[in-house]
Amino acid sequence: MKIPPVKGMRDFYPPEMSVRNYIMGHWKAVSQRNGFLEYDGPILEYLQLYTLKSGQEIVEQLFSLTDRGGRELAIRPEMTPTLARMVCQRINSLPRPIKWFSVPRLCRAERPQKGRLREFFQWNIDIIGVEDVVADAEIIFCTLDFLQAVGLTAKDIVVRISSRKLLSEALIEIGVPAERLDPVFAILDKRSRLPQEAFEQILSDQIPDQSIRSQVQTLMAISTLDEVALLARSEGACKAIAELRRLFEILHRMGVGQFCRFDIGIVRGLAYYTGIVFEVFDADDQLRAIAGGGRYDNLLAMFDGPNLPATGMGMGDCVLEILLRDKGLIDLQRIQQGLEYYVAYTEPGLMDHAIGLAAWLRRAGRSAGFCYRPVALGKQLKQASDQGCRYCIIIDRQVEAGQVILKDMSTGDQRSVTLDELLRQPG
Amino acid sequence: MKIPPVKGMRDFYPPEMSVRNYIMGHWKAVSQRNGFLEYDGPILEYLQLYTLKSGQEIVEQLFSLTDRGGRELAIRPEMTPTLARMVCQRINSLPRPIKWFSVPRLCRAERPQKGRLREFFQWNIDIIGVEDVVADAEIIFCTLDFLQAVGLTAKDIVVRISSRKLLSEALIEIGVPAERLDPVFAILDKRSRLPQEAFEQILSDQIPDQSIRSQVQTLMAISTLDEVALLARSEGACKAIAELRRLFEILHRMGVGQFCRFDIGIVRGLAYYTGIVFEVFDADDQLRAIAGGGRYDNLLAMFDGPNLPATGMGMGDCVLEILLRDKGLIDLQRIQQGLEYYVAYTEPGLMDHAIGLAAWLRRAGRSAGFCYRPVALGKQLKQASDQGCRYCIIIDRQVEAGQVILKDMSTGDQRSVTLDELLRQPG
Repeated sequence: MKIPPVKGMRDFYPPEMSVRNYIMGHWKAVSQRNGFLEYDGPILEYLQLYTLKSGQEIVEQLFSLTDRGGRELAIRPEMTPTLARMVCQRINSLPRPIKWFSVPRLCRAERPQKGRLREFFQWNIDIIGVEDVVADAEIIFCTLDFLQAVGLTAKDIVVRISSRKLLSEALIEIGVPAERLDPVFAILDKRSRLPQEAFEQILSDQIPDQSIRSQVQTLMAISTLDEVALLARSEGACKAIAELRRLFEILHRMGVGQFCRFDIGIVRGLAYYTGIVFEVFDADDQLRAIAGGGRYDNLLAMFDGPNLPATGMGMGDCVLEILLRDKGLIDLQRIQQGLEYYVAYTEPGLMDHAIGLAAWLRRAGRSAGFCYRPVALGKQLKQASDQGCRYCIIIDRQVEAGQVILKDMSTGDQRSVTLDELLRQPG
Repeated sequence: MKIPPVKGMRDFYPPEMSVRNYIMGHWKAVSQRNGFLEYDGPILEYLQLYTLKSGQEIVEQLFSLTDRGGRELAIRPEMTPTLARMVCQRINSLPRPIKWFSVPRLCRAERPQKGRLREFFQWNIDIIGVEDVVADAEIIFCTLDFLQAVGLTAKDIVVRISSRKLLSEALIEIGVPAERLDPVFAILDKRSRLPQEAFEQILSDQIPDQSIRSQVQTLMAISTLDEVALLARSEGACKAIAELRRLFEILHRMGVGQFCRFDIGIVRGLAYYTGIVFEVFDADDQLRAIAGGGRYDNLLAMFDGPNLPATGMGMGDCVLEILLRDKGLIDLQRIQQGLEYYVAYTEPGLMDHAIGLAAWLRRAGRSAGFCYRPVALGKQLKQASDQGCRYCIIIDRQVEAGQVILKDMSTGDQRSVTLDELLRQPG
């Protein structure tokens, strides 16, 4: 009987694996050139690590289990709790600022949708220990450095940026009670995804006062930082605006200003954000957010750690891959790895020479293959071509005099070379 | 309250992550140069994928769970069932031979021991569709190509090779009933790890006849292929011996003969092996097996697939890492990635220039960092040195004329350069 793969999870055959490696390779390379160090944790954590921050309702979005010792565990649905746990564990010995990245495999027990699967990979970058907005700029720059590295331009994507601090201050000035801020944030975060009526309905559950509600709506309709500045009165709001202005200034200096816009509607769903927040979208607004992040200065304290400022970003692989495919930016031909050398032989009696030569090339760091069955040379050359090999080495009786034929598979040119000359080929 | 990591699972802080990346990077590079293509499956599979082959007793070694749809799932404890499932699913469209590798994260719900954790990484290489022993030689060569690439020599490790086919034939000649072979294999596999008396006790449960048992003991005491050849009578046994001889011949031709020995005691625990079997050990026999594998020609049929010959190898990261550390082959200094450029500034007013220059270097593909707080130059240089940066760029007022100072951190040499000259530095 045939057993299928688990629903909402992917099999990565070699072509799909090439795409995944292409994306993850760029995630890693860009993280490293931006000065982030890689870390990882286990795929299983204590269930409590997630309920502590998000309450019991998170449980139904998790793959959780009880082990033989009766411990309640869960497959990690996001990386930030693991990061917080690891940082708190060694807080006194880690050099600061902590500037780390990870590319974890994550699972969420949700109904699979376009761009949202039950198993996915997520790039995480975080800077812990830096209060200044320069750290937020670094996070946004690094995100854009990757998106540009895989070929996206300011015509394809936009980073929408706001500030939780600014929004808190503005909502309090309007008259929203401080203890209502968290649920109101959660509702405002859903604003662009809900019909107007449904949005007003759930907003009125939290803000019964019609006049306050209408001021909230006016606030959320603002489209520039200058307009907010005209409204802002409190010292906190003015500071938040100055911080946003400084952020845009740094992003311009970093050469990525053209990707970035102020958008008061960016709120982020999670309760733990405290300052700058941002999301990356496709410019046509056809897909879910490609990435999102922001400042979470209180998170470590929630895990019984010190009060350290922190800011970070997460980007899943699913929406990103859809966008890259839509834009024609995944060239499977180019990213699939073919062999450098295919070692062919003109008669079965020479197969052992081919085996020996392929092994010798590999030990010298070159990639090489050969045919496991002694078939006709033409068939071997066809296999070499099907496998995308760059060169074919043809072994005939001349091999006993140390000579083989080297055939360039792209041009078809061939010439007789010695074994030493082979290794002098550009790799 | 502090939440610990799950028992038997590892946190990878940046130094541990460097070691993991060092090992996995070599696993991948060696697989590729040996012509294997990378694949992967989901971390969760249907529980049945494991019970089908191994029976209900496997369940207690698994992390299993029931999802909200009532489906019984398990975290993969090994890769072979996933490989078999994926190959069977697309058997008609995959080009053959299938020569694949994977470096999956796996979990086993066991008591953690030295070299055996509840979460680990395992290198898997497999060749499907080749009956000839040349495929087994390729698997063993590739295993050794990796072990040599990380610095191990024939003084450090040994590959012990035998044949399930040979052992079956020899046991049947002695008088062991064919239907007892599987349990007898499982007992013989444990022979080297059990006290002599305990071994004889469990063997006598399966083979009550004292004379047969003593012949089994004599057989297992044989140390060379020539000795077995003197005993072997059946056609099957002679073919198995000829196959082993051919294998050793190819391995010698590949240049790895000095690592390989015949060892009739290599049986492999799993029931699905059908031919050549092998295990890699440290030469001092201090540790568990570093790797193991062999031929499993009937496995695909067990998953309702076609009857295709197959051979493969698995190598976990835990025992390997212990051995590499014991042999002094992990040079953390060398494998940890430092930044290429640290951009320092002589006065706070120049910080924005540093930000812009670091961003410019990164966009040009170089790795670069800078200090997030405007501290004294000496402190910045110390941070650059602590972070292992190769060069320090010092920005002073000359930057407005397009000049900066480039300091080589290893020699201490410094000179004035233009920004264009910077990018012409060797990367």
